[in-house]
Amino acid sequence: MRPQEVIAVKRDGKALSDGEIASFIGGVVDGSWADYQIAAMLMAILCRGLNRREQYSITGAMLHSGTVMDFSDIDAPKADKHSTGGVGDKTSLLIAPLAAACGVAVPMISGRGLGHTGGTLDKLESIPGYEVDLTFSRFKKVIKSCGFALGGQTEQIAPADKKIYALRDATATVPYIPMIVASIMSKKLAEGLDALVLDVKTGSGAFIPKYADSLKLAHSLCETGKTFSVNTHAVITDMGQPLGMYVGNALEVYECLLLLRGEGEEQMRDTLELSVELTAMMLLQCKISGSIEAARAKVNQALTSGKALERFRKNIDLQGGDAKICDKPETILTKRMKETKVTSSTNGYVAEIDTLAVGLAVCDIGGGRLKAEDDVDAAVGYACLKKIGDRVQKGEELGIIYTRGGKHAEQAAEKLSAAYKISREFSRTTKLIRATV
Amino acid sequence: MRPQEVIAVKRDGKALSDGEIASFIGGVVDGSWADYQIAAMLMAILCRGLNRREQYSITGAMLHSGTVMDFSDIDAPKADKHSTGGVGDKTSLLIAPLAAACGVAVPMISGRGLGHTGGTLDKLESIPGYEVDLTFSRFKKVIKSCGFALGGQTEQIAPADKKIYALRDATATVPYIPMIVASIMSKKLAEGLDALVLDVKTGSGAFIPKYADSLKLAHSLCETGKTFSVNTHAVITDMGQPLGMYVGNALEVYECLLLLRGEGEEQMRDTLELSVELTAMMLLQCKISGSIEAARAKVNQALTSGKALERFRKNIDLQGGDAKICDKPETILTKRMKETKVTSSTNGYVAEIDTLAVGLAVCDIGGGRLKAEDDVDAAVGYACLKKIGDRVQKGEELGIIYTRGGKHAEQAAEKLSAAYKISREFSRTTKLIRATV
Repeated sequence: MRPQEVIAVKRDGKALSDGEIASFIGGVVDGSWADYQIAAMLMAILCRGLNRREQYSITGAMLHSGTVMDFSDIDAPKADKHSTGGVGDKTSLLIAPLAAACGVAVPMISGRGLGHTGGTLDKLESIPGYEVDLTFSRFKKVIKSCGFALGGQTEQIAPADKKIYALRDATATVPYIPMIVASIMSKKLAEGLDALVLDVKTGSGAFIPKYADSLKLAHSLCETGKTFSVNTHAVITDMGQPLGMYVGNALEVYECLLLLRGEGEEQMRDTLELSVELTAMMLLQCKISGSIEAARAKVNQALTSGKALERFRKNIDLQGGDAKICDKPETILTKRMKETKVTSSTNGYVAEIDTLAVGLAVCDIGGGRLKAEDDVDAAVGYACLKKIGDRVQKGEELGIIYTRGGKHAEQAAEKLSAAYKISREFSRTTKLIRATV
Repeated sequence: MRPQEVIAVKRDGKALSDGEIASFIGGVVDGSWADYQIAAMLMAILCRGLNRREQYSITGAMLHSGTVMDFSDIDAPKADKHSTGGVGDKTSLLIAPLAAACGVAVPMISGRGLGHTGGTLDKLESIPGYEVDLTFSRFKKVIKSCGFALGGQTEQIAPADKKIYALRDATATVPYIPMIVASIMSKKLAEGLDALVLDVKTGSGAFIPKYADSLKLAHSLCETGKTFSVNTHAVITDMGQPLGMYVGNALEVYECLLLLRGEGEEQMRDTLELSVELTAMMLLQCKISGSIEAARAKVNQALTSGKALERFRKNIDLQGGDAKICDKPETILTKRMKETKVTSSTNGYVAEIDTLAVGLAVCDIGGGRLKAEDDVDAAVGYACLKKIGDRVQKGEELGIIYTRGGKHAEQAAEKLSAAYKISREFSRTTKLIRATV
């Protein structure tokens, strides 16, 4: 089959056969489809749509374009969490040790930050020495030793998705739910999981800001997971403000360490709440607990007993990092960063935070990347001192920007200041977990 | 503007502004748009559509991506003909000398054959020594000397179209009328014409086989031409059988020479009829004749007087070819080609000829190219002895295949034999010129 013939089928609005999909995905992997042919196909798919059979078929073809990991020699149930990406979204660093401490094996393949959202790999690399590029045998060994491993997508995992993902970003073909689902699930299904919990973000800091679209995505992800025999559930969570207190790689690890040590601050409460809930869902899905209440209690016990912190300490050590940060979290932070205050220009209550703007401001000061090849400065970031519903006085600090100095700080302060909407009357607090699917 | 942002506008079904179109076409020419971004845009355009303003804007941007030829120092009216492509369609070789003999200056930029259709440049190159790659100054000099020049598209003519055309072919985005119109017209408008006559083919051998689509294309071409101040008319002509007698490069030049010499055979009548009509339309558009009847008479006089043949002789000489073929047309043919007969398996009347199959059969024996980089054998071809409406006896020749021997000949004979539908009863003859727009 020539690429043009397969593209023409979708161009004309017809459903692709499994053979045509195999030819497409096979051509992506073996290079017989040129980038421009893949791009034309992606746009035809976005414009004409995929039915459910086609979407499952593409997911399967992308999954099987690489290796499916085999953890059958690990006795524990295997589970993972995936988030659609947010600002200050650091729950992976808590969920992995919490779940491991409760008896789940967590083979977590994560990504890097892109645009306004952060990435777990970047956060981990702010830990001195920590390695995220693990061979499969080392990855598995780490899981066997401490219950979880955190690594990056290798060439062996869904290589078709890797290629397609890069082209989607460059050709404005990202916002199409069936392809988003195929991309996420082809990678997650390659982890050989029993259970998967998905954190679908909604609101101003989410890739898909509209609630109805988030709900649609969550349903489609869960259906696809179940089609491939993985017990999959999702929560839709608020990204209408940064999650927790800190945004920025080292700062976010710092926040997680404080929480694992029971030293968290009030602004970090939502980070913990969401991490506990997602881990509890995992335990329920893995039949480790019989009810969500029992699961939550078990997770909280893993936290307060210090077991989760011990798991994290062991993991850092196994992945080459300096585990002393677990005892002295502040050592992960760079000293003498320039602190620039973002203050309120009026009295009132925080009514809205443009979370996309917060993410982009942190990106601007070097904490994220606009292009995949950009470098990231782990030390910079933002402390979100006031959250939605909080009362503020004129001149009071809304947050603090941490930079290495220079004009970027002032520009970021202006942008961040403009990201807050302060209203005279108290209007609302936000609901963190908006739905469970 | 980033390419992704412009692509997203069309992806979401919105109209592109003139600025966005300029950014797209500019990016195609300066290389700042990657091929995969152009491809995604072309598919979005095909799926979401272009309104008339957008189509004119793209045509203009493609036209002005290169040079617009300036023939203001040539006193005669400037006109050209363009055909959407067919099998045995050799009228350019007659129209150019006929029009020139009647006082029109014809700056004819032609293409090469692709797929089942032939190309004027390939036909011309079967004339020993004939050069089609002319500099603009030589091109103009040839027109000044003999009234017409025949050349290929240079890098200076609509370079954006050249790039886009290649990608459309590879990405299944060819069949969209506004982009077909933009492609044709951006090149033709670059010829600095006063008048343009378009031959839109319809039927089994046309790129757009359906009559309604051909009519739509013809109207859109004419409207676009007029928008850019070129007096443009079109005919819709039958491509339900090969035009004239021969299909194949040297054979088609041979047919034209015979016709210019008044020695044509019965099967060549439609070639002459269409050439005379299209040239007459040109004279009328250029106000050289006051009525179509007067124009036809003038063209016929140019033919029978031998003036058109003299123009062709002079042109061949000026473009480096061996003009002796005008006196001995048979010298253009390669001697001792293998002749394979295609015969009728039954008595009856020729009711249909699958003209696409005829074109592809000639392509198979080396007379055309499936890919742009294929070589073409000028000597091979097919003589179409029986045409629609002709009576045939069982075993009688329908046509003759000219090859250099080998198994290709037998395979082509089978395909060609299958291309004819012979019915017991006489059903119809075809109408060559189906409509004038």
